[in-house]
Amino acid sequence: MARIVMKFGGTSVADIDRIRNVARRVKREVDAGHEVAVVVSAMSGVTNQLVAWVNQLAPLYDAREYDAVVATGEQVTSGLTALALQELGVDARSWQGWQLPLVSDDAHGKARILSIDTAEVLRRFAEGRQVAVVAGFQGIGPDGRVTTLGRGGSDTSAVALAAALQADRCDIYTDVDGVYTCDPRIVARARKLDKITYEEMLEMASLGAKVLQTRSVELAMNHRVRVQVLSSFEDKPGTLVVDEDEIVEKQVVSGIAYSRDEAKVTLTKVADKPGIAAAIFGPLAEASVNVDMIVQSSSEDGQTTDMTFTVGKADMERATRLLKSGAGVTGYAELISDPNVVKISVIGVGMRSYAGVALTMFQTLAEKGINIQVISTSEIKISVLIDEQYLELALRALHTAYGLDRQ
Amino acid sequence: MARIVMKFGGTSVADIDRIRNVARRVKREVDAGHEVAVVVSAMSGVTNQLVAWVNQLAPLYDAREYDAVVATGEQVTSGLTALALQELGVDARSWQGWQLPLVSDDAHGKARILSIDTAEVLRRFAEGRQVAVVAGFQGIGPDGRVTTLGRGGSDTSAVALAAALQADRCDIYTDVDGVYTCDPRIVARARKLDKITYEEMLEMASLGAKVLQTRSVELAMNHRVRVQVLSSFEDKPGTLVVDEDEIVEKQVVSGIAYSRDEAKVTLTKVADKPGIAAAIFGPLAEASVNVDMIVQSSSEDGQTTDMTFTVGKADMERATRLLKSGAGVTGYAELISDPNVVKISVIGVGMRSYAGVALTMFQTLAEKGINIQVISTSEIKISVLIDEQYLELALRALHTAYGLDRQ
Repeated sequence: MARIVMKFGGTSVADIDRIRNVARRVKREVDAGHEVAVVVSAMSGVTNQLVAWVNQLAPLYDAREYDAVVATGEQVTSGLTALALQELGVDARSWQGWQLPLVSDDAHGKARILSIDTAEVLRRFAEGRQVAVVAGFQGIGPDGRVTTLGRGGSDTSAVALAAALQADRCDIYTDVDGVYTCDPRIVARARKLDKITYEEMLEMASLGAKVLQTRSVELAMNHRVRVQVLSSFEDKPGTLVVDEDEIVEKQVVSGIAYSRDEAKVTLTKVADKPGIAAAIFGPLAEASVNVDMIVQSSSEDGQTTDMTFTVGKADMERATRLLKSGAGVTGYAELISDPNVVKISVIGVGMRSYAGVALTMFQTLAEKGINIQVISTSEIKISVLIDEQYLELALRALHTAYGLDRQ
Repeated sequence: MARIVMKFGGTSVADIDRIRNVARRVKREVDAGHEVAVVVSAMSGVTNQLVAWVNQLAPLYDAREYDAVVATGEQVTSGLTALALQELGVDARSWQGWQLPLVSDDAHGKARILSIDTAEVLRRFAEGRQVAVVAGFQGIGPDGRVTTLGRGGSDTSAVALAAALQADRCDIYTDVDGVYTCDPRIVARARKLDKITYEEMLEMASLGAKVLQTRSVELAMNHRVRVQVLSSFEDKPGTLVVDEDEIVEKQVVSGIAYSRDEAKVTLTKVADKPGIAAAIFGPLAEASVNVDMIVQSSSEDGQTTDMTFTVGKADMERATRLLKSGAGVTGYAELISDPNVVKISVIGVGMRSYAGVALTMFQTLAEKGINIQVISTSEIKISVLIDEQYLELALRALHTAYGLDRQ
């Protein structure tokens, strides 16, 4: 007997038939003797409708009312899923965030989970293995009002619940069947990974492989929750996200991720003196503009430096306006911004103990005549910024070069 | 300064523009210096969709899950309405049933209100006249789960809240502009009433004038809550439902109501002995078939009696099947059922002290050649059952005969 948390996303509960399908999957685990808690998202499209209503009424909305409105999507699904289970003869009941309670801080709209009371759920597991169907994405704040955890928050609810219940596994059912070595819509030879480490998944998630929400992976890593990503429409194992020592044969590179959500900003001939970076990036940080890759290169004259960095595409205009308005440094020759870039990252925990990974990347891109604009590296990742028109070419070439192609 | 509860039905909050309209109406009362609590229904159509989903999944649903699903409709509207008020610069917050709390019994799907804690709402009235936007139709049961009060329950929420707050008035905004002497779609000369007594309104409501839910009128009568029914689309006074002594010039007849939801059942030549009525109606009551009008007339032979009664149209088949299957009495000559009947009632508290009201009814119908099949009377009401094809003719003739026509 195991204890399992099963999480179903919006497309998995998009209509009544799919909710029935979810109930059948849950029943199978119950019939196998497991204790099961289910976490559900809103039916797909519902949250968008609710958010649209809020924005129509009040563009600068009171986040507490936003939460009261938007949390209803998951409430509906939790009740319907409990009913679908009961129809199959499975004892089940729905739980809203405030009923457990799942207590969060008061950051309405993007609350963080503080604690989950699982006593009653565990009592009902012990009593008759009643399935707990928990509305994802929501909690109750210190003010006694409904909070939501931000987009993708149902993943976070599921992982946090799995941690609180000390579950053996947290299965995240979604519309893809696992984590791939690369985006299969671009790289036809991409392979599904059987296992991936938390660290790798974290890099993948934050780089735009939108299978799991970053926060949920962090949480899983911190509490060592075994997460499985799998399809709710097909009947086969997915990808297990696990601790590094559960993976015997480590790949040097596990996957290649990319992000189109980058824009490049360059300031040329900035006076090269101490404090210059702080002067540039301080005002951007204050304005909540996230800066990602940063490269500083000295100019020929030895007196000045060129500063290049990336920001989210949506922030590019704001960032350049801030810099031009005299926030940060005023002494520079040119300010160049370019939204037509993509970031490509090769990711793998094996990199730590294997040299030459970066070289392979640089050589492969050079052979294809692709210019690297910015490079940044971490312990398990190498990222480069290139012209976006080369995205597909670069991904396919790198996928082959690192031996990731499906046989 | 007054304290007012304003209740808006589904058509009044059907879309974002109408919610903005509601907010403007509320603001007007706030600007006039009043303390205001608002009770909202679900946006029209939403509850039906939610109920349809539940029925699709589980025709014999768990009422606790039904409540969890269906109560979300009002939750959405409460949040949106609070936002709309804030946009107009009015301090407002939403309250769910469990937050006040509005405590009900555990009869999920048709719960009764036990108590409403208004301390926090009153504190916020005193502090800065914050508007409380309360989700109608819902409460929290002794099991800590969401309950709903049954169809039309938002009216009940509003009146109960008005009683708990000791409000000066409970305004029920709807898509009609008040209570009429008769259905204006049939009787063009029907007049809007300025005032009507609780007792009369109760008869009107239970007889199918679907302006106010019966339970909410009972509640208003028991707690002497002054209720006003008015249009949320037009800007004019509606109908006040008040205590009898607030009405100086009492009409003998205040209005004429009708119900198409009746079917007639007749058993002929039933043995006329004590206990016969109990034998017939006991099994019907056990099967939850509601019996309304009952007439017993002795047959010519003096040994037997004919028994005629009405049931809801939806129950007619079940009632006749029960009687034929031998439940109740078995000794009768014929069982005749007829769904093509309507009940017409003239209503007025003035009847108590004025003779001849029934006579006017009988004469008027006789003049038009309309046969009365069953008669029943109460202190303030005379009802007759007639062939449904005469409905419009009868209503118009009676409306004129009782002097109700608009000048």
